[in-house]
Amino acid sequence: MGQAPRIAIDAMGGDQGAEVMLAGAASARVRWPELGFLVFGDEAAIRAQVARHPALREGVEIVHTDDVIAGADKPSQAIRRAKTSSMGRAIAAVKAGEAGAAVSAGNTGALMAMAKLALRTMKGIDRPALAAMLPTLGDNDVVMLDLGANTECDAQNLVQFAVMGAAYSRVALDIARPRVALLNIGTEELKGTDGIRDAAAMLRAADYLPMEFCGFIEGDRTSRGDIDVVVSDGFSGNIALKTAEGTARFVTDLLRRSFTSSFRSKMGFLLSRPALHMLRHHLDPNNHNGAVFLGLQGIIVKSHGSADAKGVANAIHVAAKLANADITRRIAEDLAHMQAHAPAQAAPGAVA
Amino acid sequence: MGQAPRIAIDAMGGDQGAEVMLAGAASARVRWPELGFLVFGDEAAIRAQVARHPALREGVEIVHTDDVIAGADKPSQAIRRAKTSSMGRAIAAVKAGEAGAAVSAGNTGALMAMAKLALRTMKGIDRPALAAMLPTLGDNDVVMLDLGANTECDAQNLVQFAVMGAAYSRVALDIARPRVALLNIGTEELKGTDGIRDAAAMLRAADYLPMEFCGFIEGDRTSRGDIDVVVSDGFSGNIALKTAEGTARFVTDLLRRSFTSSFRSKMGFLLSRPALHMLRHHLDPNNHNGAVFLGLQGIIVKSHGSADAKGVANAIHVAAKLANADITRRIAEDLAHMQAHAPAQAAPGAVA
Repeated sequence: MGQAPRIAIDAMGGDQGAEVMLAGAASARVRWPELGFLVFGDEAAIRAQVARHPALREGVEIVHTDDVIAGADKPSQAIRRAKTSSMGRAIAAVKAGEAGAAVSAGNTGALMAMAKLALRTMKGIDRPALAAMLPTLGDNDVVMLDLGANTECDAQNLVQFAVMGAAYSRVALDIARPRVALLNIGTEELKGTDGIRDAAAMLRAADYLPMEFCGFIEGDRTSRGDIDVVVSDGFSGNIALKTAEGTARFVTDLLRRSFTSSFRSKMGFLLSRPALHMLRHHLDPNNHNGAVFLGLQGIIVKSHGSADAKGVANAIHVAAKLANADITRRIAEDLAHMQAHAPAQAAPGAVA
Repeated sequence: MGQAPRIAIDAMGGDQGAEVMLAGAASARVRWPELGFLVFGDEAAIRAQVARHPALREGVEIVHTDDVIAGADKPSQAIRRAKTSSMGRAIAAVKAGEAGAAVSAGNTGALMAMAKLALRTMKGIDRPALAAMLPTLGDNDVVMLDLGANTECDAQNLVQFAVMGAAYSRVALDIARPRVALLNIGTEELKGTDGIRDAAAMLRAADYLPMEFCGFIEGDRTSRGDIDVVVSDGFSGNIALKTAEGTARFVTDLLRRSFTSSFRSKMGFLLSRPALHMLRHHLDPNNHNGAVFLGLQGIIVKSHGSADAKGVANAIHVAAKLANADITRRIAEDLAHMQAHAPAQAAPGAVA
């Protein structure tokens, strides 16, 4: 796993605050014992939780903050509290180099706005994107981005998301040339918006990049395991992510109903329990928790507000892995690579 | 069910052509014996299939056509073959009043383009939308539109989709005031694009319409059964529909893997089989086959290219039900209702 980084933790975000964030940190230590933690929030609450976990006896530094960004706070209000809030201080620790990455389960919009303001976007990136790993029927997870950071995107944004998503796939899954596709409403070249078609043309031309561009993919193919990175604007990406979550829950709810519909099927259920446990494990969102804002000069990971300790541990693991692999530098290298090839192929609509 | 309409059938579209289309027609007769059929396509092929189904011994008129619109044909090419193709002739039969509705399993883009050109959109509708019923955990299916007819939509389009979707829900499910929501990436008022927020404001103000506007809905809530109509642009709607299909298949594939992972779970599977059959029935896309183009002066239903006879029968049933309930007139009444209230509330961006 290489040298263990230190992770800044906003202990006050999420539905259960310090309790689940520290339980998650303790659990993350089981997988990676040398991880260090820099924890921001109410000192008394944090100390009480740290005391409950022998795994947190050392390597935990606590910085007291009074202010907590609430779920209902607007991003425009939140950014004024960068210096006082646990969320703002965790981000600042990444900027100052005191932590290799930060994890928060708080307000996503506020986290994005504060992180963007404090860390700034990378050279060559116009807008950061929210990326996550989702389960597939194949051997590897699929990276999906943008999952909601940018409601509207142009072709350049989508191309940049593809570069960042491919870097994520290489770093997190060790795939040398990730297969990248653009989410669209058909696979024929003329399908979709101008932005998507232009992005496809640019990616097709950028054959020097360490990825294999596979054209368009429809929503029913993203979990088959034959594509490593699915790129979309934040609106469609969020719709796809939420629809997948909702449908998985819908099917498992139907399954539960079916199993309790007769005595015979209840018996079948009891016999199948270990098998169904596998299914539940595979679909548990906690096992895929931890979405990262790619494109910032620093690593910020969003843990789901309702994630349990296992979910938080996953998010911390994502943060640590990306920090350790220096994803920011890897993306910068690919962007520089693209920049070097750029003069030959101006963006559609640009003056040649 | 009221008086049985006559349905025009394009026998040549879809993966299996006349065989499955006529088997579907025969099956539709079981549910509604008085249905009439006007079938377009290769006469010999159609006669051979009609002979196989005693249910089709009468009430079937065949019109021979040589030309077939292929799946790869561009809509712009297809429209030139309105008078020669089975698809074009089936649409023309609706226009001429020879049939109450038409069903085709052919090329969606071509069907849309030909139908729009031949039938024209209704007064007050700028663009037709593709609508379908999808399963929920509740007592009723949910109407979703647009599922892919319009890649980009403005606020007015979305409002018109809401009016049409609500009429569909009233007619098909007998819901007096359908609960309508706009698909969005969050439920707070400031979420989404300008178009979605403007559409929400217009629908909130249109409280005289026979629907209950419930604001925004996220992708993970559409199958809960607490909303009757989900409205979106065709891009997001298609992504949501396909993602739901793909995720349902993903979960059932995982389930199959789980059940075959050990002898014990195989036994459990055998016991649970009737229960799992229920699940499969509920998720079978054939049971929800038949998407309708709403907003045209005539009823055109698209059957999925891979639908089986049961699926085609469902699509025919959708067409017959909408024809019988005179959905076009119902939508026109709601639009007129809106028009009457219009002067008081100009559309955003319009000159007052």
